Amino acid sequence: MNEDIEAGLLVQMMVYGNFGDNSYNGNYYTRDIVTGESRLVGHFGHNDFDTPPESATDISEFKPEYLKQLQQVSTQLEEKFLDIRQIKFVIEDGVVWVVEQNPVDAKSTQAEVRTLLDLYNKQLIDKDKITKTIPPTQLQDLLHPVIDHATTKGMTTIVGGLAGSPGAAVGRICFSTPTLLEEYRRCSLAGLNSDLILVMAHTDAEDVEAIEMGKAVIASVGGYASHAPVVARSLRKPCLLNEDIEFHDGYVILDGQRVNELDTISIEVPTYTDPTIWLGEAQLVFPDTSTNGLEDYIQALGDVTDSFRVLGSATTESDVEVALRLGAHGIGLFPVDHVMQREKPVAAFREALLMSDPKKRGTALKAFEEALEHELTPILTAVGERKITLRLLNGPLTEFLPHGEDEQDRVYKALAKKHSGVNAAELALRASQMRNVNPMMGLRGSRIGISYPELYEAHVAAILRAAYAASDGGKKTIDLDLVIPGVMADAEVRFIRHGRSIESTVIPGVGGVAASLLKEWGLKEMPFQARVGAMIEVPAASLMAGHMAKQSDFFTIDTNMLTQTTNGMSQADVNTFLPAFNQYDILKDNPFQILSTPVKELITATAHFGKMTRPDVDIGLSGDHASDPSNIEFAFRTKLNFVSCSPYGVPIAKLAVAQYLMNNKS
Amino acid sequence: MNEDIEAGLLVQMMVYGNFGDNSYNGNYYTRDIVTGESRLVGHFGHNDFDTPPESATDISEFKPEYLKQLQQVSTQLEEKFLDIRQIKFVIEDGVVWVVEQNPVDAKSTQAEVRTLLDLYNKQLIDKDKITKTIPPTQLQDLLHPVIDHATTKGMTTIVGGLAGSPGAAVGRICFSTPTLLEEYRRCSLAGLNSDLILVMAHTDAEDVEAIEMGKAVIASVGGYASHAPVVARSLRKPCLLNEDIEFHDGYVILDGQRVNELDTISIEVPTYTDPTIWLGEAQLVFPDTSTNGLEDYIQALGDVTDSFRVLGSATTESDVEVALRLGAHGIGLFPVDHVMQREKPVAAFREALLMSDPKKRGTALKAFEEALEHELTPILTAVGERKITLRLLNGPLTEFLPHGEDEQDRVYKALAKKHSGVNAAELALRASQMRNVNPMMGLRGSRIGISYPELYEAHVAAILRAAYAASDGGKKTIDLDLVIPGVMADAEVRFIRHGRSIESTVIPGVGGVAASLLKEWGLKEMPFQARVGAMIEVPAASLMAGHMAKQSDFFTIDTNMLTQTTNGMSQADVNTFLPAFNQYDILKDNPFQILSTPVKELITATAHFGKMTRPDVDIGLSGDHASDPSNIEFAFRTKLNFVSCSPYGVPIAKLAVAQYLMNNKS
Repeated sequence: MNEDIEAGLLVQMMVYGNFGDNSYNGNYYTRDIVTGESRLVGHFGHNDFDTPPESATDISEFKPEYLKQLQQVSTQLEEKFLDIRQIKFVIEDGVVWVVEQNPVDAKSTQAEVRTLLDLYNKQLIDKDKITKTIPPTQLQDLLHPVIDHATTKGMTTIVGGLAGSPGAAVGRICFSTPTLLEEYRRCSLAGLNSDLILVMAHTDAEDVEAIEMGKAVIASVGGYASHAPVVARSLRKPCLLNEDIEFHDGYVILDGQRVNELDTISIEVPTYTDPTIWLGEAQLVFPDTSTNGLEDYIQALGDVTDSFRVLGSATTESDVEVALRLGAHGIGLFPVDHVMQREKPVAAFREALLMSDPKKRGTALKAFEEALEHELTPILTAVGERKITLRLLNGPLTEFLPHGEDEQDRVYKALAKKHSGVNAAELALRASQMRNVNPMMGLRGSRIGISYPELYEAHVAAILRAAYAASDGGKKTIDLDLVIPGVMADAEVRFIRHGRSIESTVIPGVGGVAASLLKEWGLKEMPFQARVGAMIEVPAASLMAGHMAKQSDFFTIDTNMLTQTTNGMSQADVNTFLPAFNQYDILKDNPFQILSTPVKELITATAHFGKMTRPDVDIGLSGDHASDPSNIEFAFRTKLNFVSCSPYGVPIAKLAVAQYLMNNKS
Repeated sequence: MNEDIEAGLLVQMMVYGNFGDNSYNGNYYTRDIVTGESRLVGHFGHNDFDTPPESATDISEFKPEYLKQLQQVSTQLEEKFLDIRQIKFVIEDGVVWVVEQNPVDAKSTQAEVRTLLDLYNKQLIDKDKITKTIPPTQLQDLLHPVIDHATTKGMTTIVGGLAGSPGAAVGRICFSTPTLLEEYRRCSLAGLNSDLILVMAHTDAEDVEAIEMGKAVIASVGGYASHAPVVARSLRKPCLLNEDIEFHDGYVILDGQRVNELDTISIEVPTYTDPTIWLGEAQLVFPDTSTNGLEDYIQALGDVTDSFRVLGSATTESDVEVALRLGAHGIGLFPVDHVMQREKPVAAFREALLMSDPKKRGTALKAFEEALEHELTPILTAVGERKITLRLLNGPLTEFLPHGEDEQDRVYKALAKKHSGVNAAELALRASQMRNVNPMMGLRGSRIGISYPELYEAHVAAILRAAYAASDGGKKTIDLDLVIPGVMADAEVRFIRHGRSIESTVIPGVGGVAASLLKEWGLKEMPFQARVGAMIEVPAASLMAGHMAKQSDFFTIDTNMLTQTTNGMSQADVNTFLPAFNQYDILKDNPFQILSTPVKELITATAHFGKMTRPDVDIGLSGDHASDPSNIEFAFRTKLNFVSCSPYGVPIAKLAVAQYLMNNKS
């Protein structure tokens, strides 16, 4: 009340919207609470006391003179309260009165962000205010698809329930895991739409696969910490909990409405308001960050700090583009494996893998080197002067061999036709010999570089050639980092960097490959920076970080892998036991979202030992954890230098960094 | 020379074995250098200067009067030099002269052990001497099969080459990996003998599978650190290196002899003398430790120390018997999973897993409990008063489901027939849902106990019932330890020990199960000791050992698993990259034999944190590392309390412990 009086706008006496032909009543928001657009949204009634919305007229059709006055009120109130307001007005015989005005709870994140930006641009709020207002994870609302509300017109709408996991989905409903999996298989095989939503009283360990295959899950029993929401959040799928579901044979009664199994529904579970179910097929729209305010918001936050970088992880050119657009300082992790999988490089590489004759192998590797250079050059060009960290060949090698019988048959036959003295059966045998029992812990990363040095040489040469081309022969700046995956200690890093000479065998390493290229180019030194670092994926590497730092310019800690190896916990399988662990308080969080204690200890050890040996070693996190605010705080406390997150994690991480710095100003 | 003079036996003048009809010459060993049997082994010639062995007569056919004198010389020399001696003699006109006597290099370990035992029994040497003489790993010679030399008579014998990895084998030779694998498959499928030996100039990464499938490997190029011996040692297969092999199309020339591909050969690679190849099929004999001196030797070493125990790991009754016979202080690790796999328990258990109806599940679990108790009782009875540590259910659960289509079909159909309303397709689906992507890091160990508490309750009840039966209702002493696999921190141990009550759900835990049984038996407390401890398999558990010790009476560190998780290195795949790592000095040893540095750091952390919280927590190693002398030394330095090795590792570990204690007497 005081607040309203202070605003000097509150009517202090009774006024009447039904006073005569020149009288009105109405309600409006100072701006669109979903899109954040600065236009009045509401309705009015004519010569009436309090017109219900359904018989009222849209406020945009109001007389311009009144509209102008209401807009003035709106601007004054927003500028006073620095937020969106909801206003009730009466026009008594041509005079505009504000009867009531209130804050708005149910506004979208987009509306909130846009309001902040407008106020900031008017210099009514400062950078601290735009930094601290929104919790970082809430930015997800501007990143995941939403239901296009224009397409839900006329559908039965069921509002309410608990948000188990945010998001939106459209799909046909299934009432059991066998039904969903069966339908999923049938549709996938037939090339039909296989978007399905699991609807059950409650889910259990055996339903994890269905939640994974489905687009969303709805349950009627349980709370935020029960099975369905725990698994859904872990898999980043929307989940809605609604008590008002009655299960019958082949149909459910949803808030009084009958819905048959395999009928299509649409759901939206926002973070800012109640979840909604629509009976029918709405359209999902993917957010446009250039218009929904996110990019402007991140821009307004500014480059948070030079000493702590938020980088984006990418596997495609489009990822690179999105990450940079969303404010990434550079590309913190780009696996060369993904580029090697493209048509031309993979064809040449698999030929090299399958040929036992060294000459044929050499020819194939040369072709591979050229094809890979060709693919990498535009990526390095696109990043421009910003940093890009390429992860060297990781494998396992079987990833590059043909998959499935048809492809195998085709590839082996083609190779047998191309090369005399080579038959398909022999190639199949050679391919089968490359299989590891536990590929994740077998011959991969630096182990490939040590066991098959020629494979590493070829792809390193391709990378350096691409960087040379992208730098236009050294005229443009290129900031290239090479990170070596799958290392346990310093000896592997040294081998990959510097190679080794034993008797007649000379393995050049990255340094030797660079030296050969310099000779070819007639140069004395590389015309671009190329640092070499180590991926920290296993506890051994953390514990050996002191030694490792002698050989490494930087460490990229792969928190997903480190969580798997430290806890003996496969990310692909964690949902089979995580719900029980959450339920019985054995684990409070998902260790693949919030770093677990032992993993934090190992990261601390990595930083401690690493910086003891080499104070300037650059250390950062990459993985699913990298954008979570609580992990960002940990990264600061541990004196790390960067995080590299998925492109859509970049704005979240940037906001978390900005908030951390604001709260810890010295 | 001086030594001989001191013995007072050396002839100081020329004597002649060809002096007349009553003159002889000869050579003999004071005992059998292969078996260690105390009888003269050698030959003599009649009225001759120096008869070559092939035309000489076996010494056992010598005149009793001479034999008696030679036996006296033999005894005197052994008692003087405290070892086997080789003696050259001359009988000149009826007078026995020792011309020369020397130590014997090429004696078997068995002969050495037996000689030591004889001298010890005669009180000519003390316990220190019998303890220090033999390197612990050399006892392996008394444990692995050897060629029965009686069956090699008349075969071409090729002596020489380098020992790459000790052992003996008989098999048909193959000159390439594809040939060996093809022949192996063909014979295995047809039920024929598939014992094959790989013979190649040198092996490479793609030959690892053939070395694994084969019985032994022979290479002509390379030394002790080259590919074939490294892989063979890692797989504990015999490997022989012999430069004198010429490779031709379909045959080899072996020391001048032609041998065709798929011909059978026999090889022996002892630690004490040159390797031998026989062209032909000899018999392999398995050692009898009750007659070859090993058991007597271990007995003579005595119970090395009470504060450090050497235990045996076992999966069968026969393992238990062998481990105890070879001197184990008790059974340090017996996985209940193995007993659960027996016919009756597994049938009931898989029924419990596959039934979704709680009542049917309960009935099946009750049957499982009874069947498991029945299997466990004789094992606990056999161990008697000595300790046995049972590892609780480890899984993954798919291990207990039927494997292969035929078995699946049979089991599902049988269950569908037994239970109305259950069909085979549904069972197959339920089984497929239990599959994990990475079973080793998925739902296993305590995670099963937490996600499916009823499975843990049933097998814990069976164990306690069996212990009660074996203790004859408490009249006999039982020393039972239960170890919980697959734990990351203290919360899991607490849950498994003490259970949990949440709302209406009561999970009894080991304590609750015990309480119910006491009620049933009408007892106040358990009539036998049953401690509960944690398996340390993942780095997280090591790092959390301080907390864990609050909940655990003991820790069993599974060094194989810990090596896998710490180094991100699968034991099944290590041979695909270990040879290159050895060759380039990146790893000096096989981390699955000698503990690697980071694993040692984690073991040290486990002991340090664990004993800080609870000084009496009992900590030990189990796994392939547990019997290696260098790891034993580490275990002492780290103040561990026990090791548990494979039954055949027990004597090696005991000797290593005895030597360590002798060398570190305070």
